[in-house]
Amino acid sequence: MVYFDSAATSWPKPPEVWQAMEHFIKKVGASPGRAGHRRTVEANQMVDETRELLAELFNIGDHHRIIFTLNATDSLNLAIKGLLRPGDHVVTSSMEHNSVTRPLYTLASYGVEVTKVACDGQGNISVRDIEQAIKPNTKAIVMTHASNVTGTIMPAAEVGQIAAKHNIYFVMDAAQTAGVLDIDVQKLNISVLTFPGHKSLLGPPGTGGIYIREGVPLLTLREGGTGSGSETPTQPEMMPEKYESGTLNGVGVAGLGAGVKFLRRVGMKKIRDQEMNLTKRFLDGAARIQGLQVYGPQNVDDRVAVVSFRMDGYKASQVGERLDKEFDIACRAGLHCAPDAHRTLGTFEEKLIRFSFSYYNQPSEVDFALNALRQIAASRPPAVTTLPVK
Amino acid sequence: MVYFDSAATSWPKPPEVWQAMEHFIKKVGASPGRAGHRRTVEANQMVDETRELLAELFNIGDHHRIIFTLNATDSLNLAIKGLLRPGDHVVTSSMEHNSVTRPLYTLASYGVEVTKVACDGQGNISVRDIEQAIKPNTKAIVMTHASNVTGTIMPAAEVGQIAAKHNIYFVMDAAQTAGVLDIDVQKLNISVLTFPGHKSLLGPPGTGGIYIREGVPLLTLREGGTGSGSETPTQPEMMPEKYESGTLNGVGVAGLGAGVKFLRRVGMKKIRDQEMNLTKRFLDGAARIQGLQVYGPQNVDDRVAVVSFRMDGYKASQVGERLDKEFDIACRAGLHCAPDAHRTLGTFEEKLIRFSFSYYNQPSEVDFALNALRQIAASRPPAVTTLPVK
Repeated sequence: MVYFDSAATSWPKPPEVWQAMEHFIKKVGASPGRAGHRRTVEANQMVDETRELLAELFNIGDHHRIIFTLNATDSLNLAIKGLLRPGDHVVTSSMEHNSVTRPLYTLASYGVEVTKVACDGQGNISVRDIEQAIKPNTKAIVMTHASNVTGTIMPAAEVGQIAAKHNIYFVMDAAQTAGVLDIDVQKLNISVLTFPGHKSLLGPPGTGGIYIREGVPLLTLREGGTGSGSETPTQPEMMPEKYESGTLNGVGVAGLGAGVKFLRRVGMKKIRDQEMNLTKRFLDGAARIQGLQVYGPQNVDDRVAVVSFRMDGYKASQVGERLDKEFDIACRAGLHCAPDAHRTLGTFEEKLIRFSFSYYNQPSEVDFALNALRQIAASRPPAVTTLPVK
Repeated sequence: MVYFDSAATSWPKPPEVWQAMEHFIKKVGASPGRAGHRRTVEANQMVDETRELLAELFNIGDHHRIIFTLNATDSLNLAIKGLLRPGDHVVTSSMEHNSVTRPLYTLASYGVEVTKVACDGQGNISVRDIEQAIKPNTKAIVMTHASNVTGTIMPAAEVGQIAAKHNIYFVMDAAQTAGVLDIDVQKLNISVLTFPGHKSLLGPPGTGGIYIREGVPLLTLREGGTGSGSETPTQPEMMPEKYESGTLNGVGVAGLGAGVKFLRRVGMKKIRDQEMNLTKRFLDGAARIQGLQVYGPQNVDDRVAVVSFRMDGYKASQVGERLDKEFDIACRAGLHCAPDAHRTLGTFEEKLIRFSFSYYNQPSEVDFALNALRQIAASRPPAVTTLPVK
């Protein structure tokens, strides 16, 4: 099987990820932050270490300001609904995932004003357009770091500067970049960073996180048991307890920590280079397949390892089905939970096929897939020029 | 090590729980509900099967009305905040966990009126008091099925009848009962059932669920990618997608499914009998230790396998520390994230030590713990009658 769906969830995971999970579930087991016996102490140490690893990765001064969540969607709901109030204005892009657009759509019905800055047909946004969208009541810019459809890397540094200049918050969705691109929350002036644990950070599903810069007035969305500060009727103000209610996914966090350690050991640059070599190989090969059209930047420096394309004569779902059934290639055909992005590209009706590569993919797999696509292109059904007689 | 902290999270898990998780992370990996390749199809089947297993367990007609969440706290926040609106009145008990009291406290500041029905010193609630608390604007009763401090089983059937009679919703928190007590949502007239996956259902941490009866007008709290229905700006109305945004904890759900299968194979009655034998053994032994006072019902039929107690001459934390350090017994001393329950018992200041037993505990472990407590009681520091001269 060729797995080209790592933008949904990365696979395979490094062996140490499930080894850490196995150790946790078999030998630790306890709920971190609860009780004081040695099992919980070990669980606490593991959770704290994972927080520290992530803090170093993102250059976050105080690792307690990282909260573990269910997934990046959970993080984004907290970021968006916790921050914006009726009467606030928010600027976002036309390339966002539903995990941004849907919470904003909900808030719009409560009186939050939303401006979606239109991107071009390759998914690029104009920094000037973003700045021009800012109004006196603008509270935040909420934007992805890279499109999950075209792989286009957004100008995070410039957006961070605009946010600083206008004294507004910058919420960045790192769903496609955490673990592959350098993210320095201080340099990028990020107020709130949301990330999944199970994509390029190589942790298991059921993990995600959010960094909340000190002073960002985020309401809690999930209140409950916090292990410490239990006596108050409200959430404790202390971090991470304030936003981290209920039993943590300890086994998942153990795996996430191991994933981040793998990243550090191998080196993010090496991983990024491998992914972009695969991406370039695919882009070069795809350019020579007649009737195959790739969306997003041609220059691999401007994108992550996510490539979406269409093929003449086929619906995206037909190509996806043939890749799966005839070639055992796992990819994703459809809207990729980002209908706005597809509207921007003009592919909302037709939809696209998406390949996403990981460090574990091989050049031979790319060649195999290119060959499959060549065969599919060659066996294209003839266009119907006359209707059959009934 | 003796693990008596299964009310926080059960440990150990049946071997098949880890085996199912290992299979998922090594061999399946894909994100259920996303794409259509065979890996996601296998992930979907596993998730669907787990939903069906839970639906059978709780006698839920349509398994799609079960949603997977991060934990029971996540479920309760959805249940409570999704249901109650300013001006609504809600009835709850004085024995609730912070996962109920804190969301209600938050809602109170938005104009939701909360009545906490006082329980007695053993954690028992009067059904009559509950009915008398109902007012014309009462929308729901939110109540735990069993206290996580005293183990007291609450009168769910009677509460369900009251809810039906008054045409209000019944939200039941099954944190301490899902997997050990029979829960039939139809017989109990439950509108919304919330449960953790990692306690008596024997799944891993990072899993929880919520059942939402058809017609219960629950707003979504977490919006985002749903895999299907991606084209609409709002969440799809379809279940489970409406409430299940973002990448599911597939590996956790796989483990949860295996946990429920274990329950079915062994039989919940056998598990409950084993747990209550251990509980009775402990209660009988504890009654003979001078200065040790147990809270909650003496009759094991009226409780689950959670026992809290105090010891003369000690703070709860001192006992917990000695049990851990000298005897390697893992238990939980403190407020158990349920300050209201401790206020009800009169133990808010002193706090309590909690033992919670699982199917995997042995009578010899109970005897070992009783012996440890006897030693601790015997080595009680003498009460200070005169201050030492400085």
